[in-house]
Amino acid sequence: MNSLTIALDVMGGDKGPHITINAAILAINKEPRLHLFLCGDKSIITKYLLEHHIREHPQLTIIPTTETVAMDEKPSSALRNKRDSSMRKALDLVEQGKAQACVSAGNTGALFAMAYCVLKTLPGVERPALISALPTHKENKNVFMLDLGANVFCEANILYQFGLMGSVIAEQVDGITKPRVALLNMGEEDIKGSDHIKLAATKLSANKYINYVGFIEGNDIFTNKTDVIVCDGFVGNVALKTCEGVAQLVYRKLDRFLSEHFFARIIGKMLAPALKKLFKSMNPDQYNGASLIGLRGIVVKSHGNASAKAFEAAIFEAIKEVEQQVPEKITIALEQGLIEETHTE
Amino acid sequence: MNSLTIALDVMGGDKGPHITINAAILAINKEPRLHLFLCGDKSIITKYLLEHHIREHPQLTIIPTTETVAMDEKPSSALRNKRDSSMRKALDLVEQGKAQACVSAGNTGALFAMAYCVLKTLPGVERPALISALPTHKENKNVFMLDLGANVFCEANILYQFGLMGSVIAEQVDGITKPRVALLNMGEEDIKGSDHIKLAATKLSANKYINYVGFIEGNDIFTNKTDVIVCDGFVGNVALKTCEGVAQLVYRKLDRFLSEHFFARIIGKMLAPALKKLFKSMNPDQYNGASLIGLRGIVVKSHGNASAKAFEAAIFEAIKEVEQQVPEKITIALEQGLIEETHTE
Repeated sequence: MNSLTIALDVMGGDKGPHITINAAILAINKEPRLHLFLCGDKSIITKYLLEHHIREHPQLTIIPTTETVAMDEKPSSALRNKRDSSMRKALDLVEQGKAQACVSAGNTGALFAMAYCVLKTLPGVERPALISALPTHKENKNVFMLDLGANVFCEANILYQFGLMGSVIAEQVDGITKPRVALLNMGEEDIKGSDHIKLAATKLSANKYINYVGFIEGNDIFTNKTDVIVCDGFVGNVALKTCEGVAQLVYRKLDRFLSEHFFARIIGKMLAPALKKLFKSMNPDQYNGASLIGLRGIVVKSHGNASAKAFEAAIFEAIKEVEQQVPEKITIALEQGLIEETHTE
Repeated sequence: MNSLTIALDVMGGDKGPHITINAAILAINKEPRLHLFLCGDKSIITKYLLEHHIREHPQLTIIPTTETVAMDEKPSSALRNKRDSSMRKALDLVEQGKAQACVSAGNTGALFAMAYCVLKTLPGVERPALISALPTHKENKNVFMLDLGANVFCEANILYQFGLMGSVIAEQVDGITKPRVALLNMGEEDIKGSDHIKLAATKLSANKYINYVGFIEGNDIFTNKTDVIVCDGFVGNVALKTCEGVAQLVYRKLDRFLSEHFFARIIGKMLAPALKKLFKSMNPDQYNGASLIGLRGIVVKSHGNASAKAFEAAIFEAIKEVEQQVPEKITIALEQGLIEETHTE
């Protein structure tokens, strides 16, 4: 009997089934408790499984769908018109309690809109957020950042809820006691930033349940000054993508330098694995996926052009959240957080 | 006879006169046409000059002031109460036509508020913007980004004006014909982002004077897809500081790796100058300063904790803008841009 059931949006992502089916097979071979629902075009899925000499497998169930959400499709159109899409079916399975989590590499906006509509938010949560872990100066220590692009703009109250949810994730997923929570701002001083950020700061610091440590700037994202960084989706998305951009730039410049000098070329080969690991960690959503939190169900978003290894990592991220019962723990924290808020008001 | 007169806010910055006076002496020694007004506490300036065995110098004039704007002072308070500050005096000299430009490493918000109030904006410009050049994958090719933090939030019309001003800077400062102008967004598709960004896109693409190329994401800041990147000050500030943060993180991780391995340690020494240059370029406002454009005068902002070398670079940035008559050229472009707009409407 399998104890972990996860629904995959097989058709999602830039490369679709070729990648997702490969990842599914890698995952079931590693985790015997895992059962995967493969949502997508039955003939395509069957074809790819046959390439791996699989006709039937006790850990795999095909859920046939007739539609696919395009990567550039408008979220509202996907929500209205793609009720028989692989993305929608995967979310439906979570909503019906048949799957414990859903993993998709599809259109982020559409996934967000569908998940919001199908699964609904947890009590006390107005908007779900996209969260991921970024590396810090300290070895093996991450910092969680949210929202990474699910919501364009966030009012103070939404940022406050993100602070609470981020705190739970840091505590539950990385085992940090009393996680430090900071707001990303354009200066550390209290007078800096927009009114809604100042109001969010007031709300976060008033709540004793949250270990709010103040504003931080972009250059302190990685310095381990905090465990959780809260910002709106526009800013979070730009910051995350900028990280990827800088990492790529530095990697290319280093690579050019290392290939131009004879001795450096030798060292370049020595350096390669360490460099690769470092630059991979600068690109977290491409590697481990990002999670959509605040919903009545677990949804992990893999990068649009994820490799099979990266999509597999996203499946294991989903498994981790199932085992740690993330949504349940967010609900408890929010209840406590809200009680705390009522007390302090 | 000197043909370049620049006013320095000697008291500004984390390290104050120690750094700024050193930079001033470096600059006059390199550029015989340069005359500097040293605005600040006369006894302190005299003391530092004496350390360099300077009693009087034909290229230096002390402008005594009695007040200093603190680094964490509220802009509104600085504007109201610090009329005899070194920052204010330096700007006054530009306004009076006695200096052609002003350089400060002081409180950015206060400098912005004072410059806005003392110098006023150019005709057709509603808000000045902070602009700087970032490196790209292409050797010796920069990309100009604005606003880097002068304005928290910018409406569509302000972003549109930034696009026009950025285009002029790229053309005049780096000699790029028909500079490509892009808006920083959380996706490349037309449907992405907030309403004011979409409106700014419509305005920019309607103006034939601007070579508008669409939205870009954070990971494309450095890929030479564009010559000018436009965003609001909050987003620009976060992106710029995130660059610094990533560069620091990569530098530290590389440094640790290079010191841990014997052969790598040797190569590390070889790599050091190239690495330093690269990571310096990832930190442009710390190195060359950023310019406040859209004003009736030239104002260059050096980083708060700039070194003497960096403050000197900011002085030379100011000289460059004086020689290229940047404000005059922005005025002409805006007139043309506005005419174009009237035609297309």
